[in-house]
Amino acid sequence: MSKSSESAGYADSRRQALALRQLRKAFASGRIETGELALKTASLDTCRLAHMPAAVLHPACDEEVSATLRLANKYRVPVTTRGAGSATTGATTPILGGWVLDLSSWDSIEIDAVSGYAHVGAGALNAKIDEAAAKKGWFYPPDPSSKGYSTIGGNIACNAGGLRAAKYGVTRDYVVALEGFLPTGEPVKWGLPLKKYVSGFNLRDLWIGSEGMLGVVTKATLKLIPRPSVRATWLAAYKSEAAALRTVKRILKARLVPSILEFIDRQTLECFLRKHERAGTLGTLPFRVKPGDLAPAMLLMEIDGDAAQVRRQLKGARELLGTGAQWVRQARDDAQAEALWRIRRTCSQAMFQMGDTKLNEDIVVPLDAQLPLLKYTLEVKKKTGLATPTFGHAADGNFHVHVMFDWDDPEQRARAKTSIELIMRKVVELGGSITGEHGIGLAKSPFLHLQHTEAEIAAMRRIKDALDPAWILNPGKMFEPFDMWQVPRVRDWRFPWDH
Amino acid sequence: MSKSSESAGYADSRRQALALRQLRKAFASGRIETGELALKTASLDTCRLAHMPAAVLHPACDEEVSATLRLANKYRVPVTTRGAGSATTGATTPILGGWVLDLSSWDSIEIDAVSGYAHVGAGALNAKIDEAAAKKGWFYPPDPSSKGYSTIGGNIACNAGGLRAAKYGVTRDYVVALEGFLPTGEPVKWGLPLKKYVSGFNLRDLWIGSEGMLGVVTKATLKLIPRPSVRATWLAAYKSEAAALRTVKRILKARLVPSILEFIDRQTLECFLRKHERAGTLGTLPFRVKPGDLAPAMLLMEIDGDAAQVRRQLKGARELLGTGAQWVRQARDDAQAEALWRIRRTCSQAMFQMGDTKLNEDIVVPLDAQLPLLKYTLEVKKKTGLATPTFGHAADGNFHVHVMFDWDDPEQRARAKTSIELIMRKVVELGGSITGEHGIGLAKSPFLHLQHTEAEIAAMRRIKDALDPAWILNPGKMFEPFDMWQVPRVRDWRFPWDH
Repeated sequence: MSKSSESAGYADSRRQALALRQLRKAFASGRIETGELALKTASLDTCRLAHMPAAVLHPACDEEVSATLRLANKYRVPVTTRGAGSATTGATTPILGGWVLDLSSWDSIEIDAVSGYAHVGAGALNAKIDEAAAKKGWFYPPDPSSKGYSTIGGNIACNAGGLRAAKYGVTRDYVVALEGFLPTGEPVKWGLPLKKYVSGFNLRDLWIGSEGMLGVVTKATLKLIPRPSVRATWLAAYKSEAAALRTVKRILKARLVPSILEFIDRQTLECFLRKHERAGTLGTLPFRVKPGDLAPAMLLMEIDGDAAQVRRQLKGARELLGTGAQWVRQARDDAQAEALWRIRRTCSQAMFQMGDTKLNEDIVVPLDAQLPLLKYTLEVKKKTGLATPTFGHAADGNFHVHVMFDWDDPEQRARAKTSIELIMRKVVELGGSITGEHGIGLAKSPFLHLQHTEAEIAAMRRIKDALDPAWILNPGKMFEPFDMWQVPRVRDWRFPWDH
Repeated sequence: MSKSSESAGYADSRRQALALRQLRKAFASGRIETGELALKTASLDTCRLAHMPAAVLHPACDEEVSATLRLANKYRVPVTTRGAGSATTGATTPILGGWVLDLSSWDSIEIDAVSGYAHVGAGALNAKIDEAAAKKGWFYPPDPSSKGYSTIGGNIACNAGGLRAAKYGVTRDYVVALEGFLPTGEPVKWGLPLKKYVSGFNLRDLWIGSEGMLGVVTKATLKLIPRPSVRATWLAAYKSEAAALRTVKRILKARLVPSILEFIDRQTLECFLRKHERAGTLGTLPFRVKPGDLAPAMLLMEIDGDAAQVRRQLKGARELLGTGAQWVRQARDDAQAEALWRIRRTCSQAMFQMGDTKLNEDIVVPLDAQLPLLKYTLEVKKKTGLATPTFGHAADGNFHVHVMFDWDDPEQRARAKTSIELIMRKVVELGGSITGEHGIGLAKSPFLHLQHTEAEIAAMRRIKDALDPAWILNPGKMFEPFDMWQVPRVRDWRFPWDH
């Protein structure tokens, strides 16, 4: 029988205080915070389910990380590793209290421009890594929407994807080596900065996507690739969502491999345009639209590569995208491309017109199931009366289906719960995944059994037992269904990235 | 304390016979063989360390695989999964006897030409998968030298690489989903045919490269990519190995990304040319060479892509390759390319002039360590007096260092052991890997501790304990140093691929 956070027997507050006193002795150069603001900051992620930790630790060296884990094992104190806190699932929330291990200051970035590797600390920001790579002509492709503020440690914890995954892959495809600590405190390295390595069991990839439950990542070596020099950007509008998704299928069947192929549905476009209508800024958009005259669906497409590659594909790409389109705009320069991008960049925030709470589900479906999924979101909308605005990365089938509702209305909350459950069941029925890039955390824990059999989950839990016998690392997540509908979301908190 | 095959308490022959009788009842449509030839065939791989199993099982369905594992657990019978037996490390040798689970007939191949996936059985041959993909314009890039006869199950077990890995990656980069059985017999699926998937712990990648010790893979879904339509092939000769390796560095620094960049050293070329000298076939070679007039090093290079991409790179590639070269031949068509390839394809067999036993070490070193490694192989040659012919995939630093000797000469055997130990230590000292694509198996088990710390190995063993509590799957490998120098190699056996 596998352990669980309930059977783990964590330290009570007296024992925790004792452990913390021991820890202070081990922290020679790092900081330990217990002030109200520090604890509140570390209590939540963008899922806004909060639980106060007992302390926030800012280790300054390997020894302090190791000491943290050894004492946590000895005294049975839950430890939750944290970067920026941009997780969307509650994976970063210290739901059972204990210590938050904040590695956001471990943000070193070193580029090996000859071999094409980035050696980074867990706290390095995704976008900063790519900026540093770009300066030497290299490219770090994984680009979660949070790239400006999310750390590579967090990206590794949930195997973050992004918009370019269909062409360039996800975080896992770029991690060649990890350094860090076993849950029991021993330093380990998995992999080396080499293009081939098959010695021993592959714990590197077991760590990636394990949501901070199997080890603490302190450093990573990332593979870089030569930077594409040219891109072409289009925005196209369609008379229906089905027409847009048929175009997606046509593009993929033709093996065009766009670097970006973003689908935006009618509900999302309505939010976006209504916001501009109200603000009187329709005229600033890169396409003409009369108030009330809404395109039912759009595709944003980019192809990239060297000049010859992009040039060779231009005509075919434009034709494929144009089939069934109402109109297609092609950017003539970077500024125009950015204008076309604005709709995709801001549509998510525009959804808050439809409710104060947004559930963002990052489901994935096979190519043939894209249209059935979208139709089903409309059925769910009809059934529950709650909006289900959807956009996503159509080239890899990873759609962000949102459910918008007012948290304080218990009846809306009940309907939102129904919406999510219906969508999750449907996704699995369609041969899809309940999560493509966010992970399970707290929010998806009730649905893990939809995706995996009992035997599969039991095997995962046995691995947790094997590496973290005291279940101290990020407990209460993934395997233990969390009833997030009983826990009020924190609304009086502004993340640096809120706008 | 982790288990081991010594503490596992395997069934004695009486209990094994009892278990086999039970198993016969469960095998409704599959076959069980106990004849001498079948057992001998299953007793070894190309490492030629043999141990006779008690039975060879050819299951015909999932239920029979499951029954095998359940009975093996109940009666504690070692089970070794087998494809073609082309492993080079003894990983396929049933070193503790028991049952060999032969999945070579599970060779189904189905291509999803729209989404670009191959759904294959574990016994499907690597080259057959790529042939099936090619018919629909797709490409399965991993190309171990054994591709004509090795199964995908075996490729997955050791995360096989190949010649094109620096550009296209290894087996792991193409496996999107696995189906099979836990060591305890439960059916499981890890991953789905989707481009993004992050639900639960990633046991798919834990299985890949675990050498059949953590589960039985029965089916796989592989990602395919659009097939490059054009290639350009060159063979170049250099006045020294250092000159050739300097050219490698220049090519990689320029970020040319060749699909093939094979280095061949002086000792290997000597074997090859001497063989042709003796056979009087020097005139058939695609370059002029007088008897005794040997090029000290060669590079075989290919670039591939679409016509525009290849054309654009031709001149630069030729110039980079030509710097420091004695001569460069460019193939004008496929037949000429094949002629240039012949030297690389046949040089390995030519080495047997230098000894009846060949140890093929698939080490990997960082770019800056390529020349130091090669120099060290010459030091080792000088020290032990045994040849160390070396060729390999220079673009990813994966070199095949061979040690040639006569097994029956105990003094040569002792020197061969010294050679291997010296090379392994040096590789780790240079920041490299003791294995890039073959795995540990029996042959490299004495060196695992050079690559990994005690804590790392302990974590791996705990995972073995967690998934295979009775240690029945492929025991005696990886973690238990095997003294292969005490065990005579089988020489009276011809593999279908021997020539």
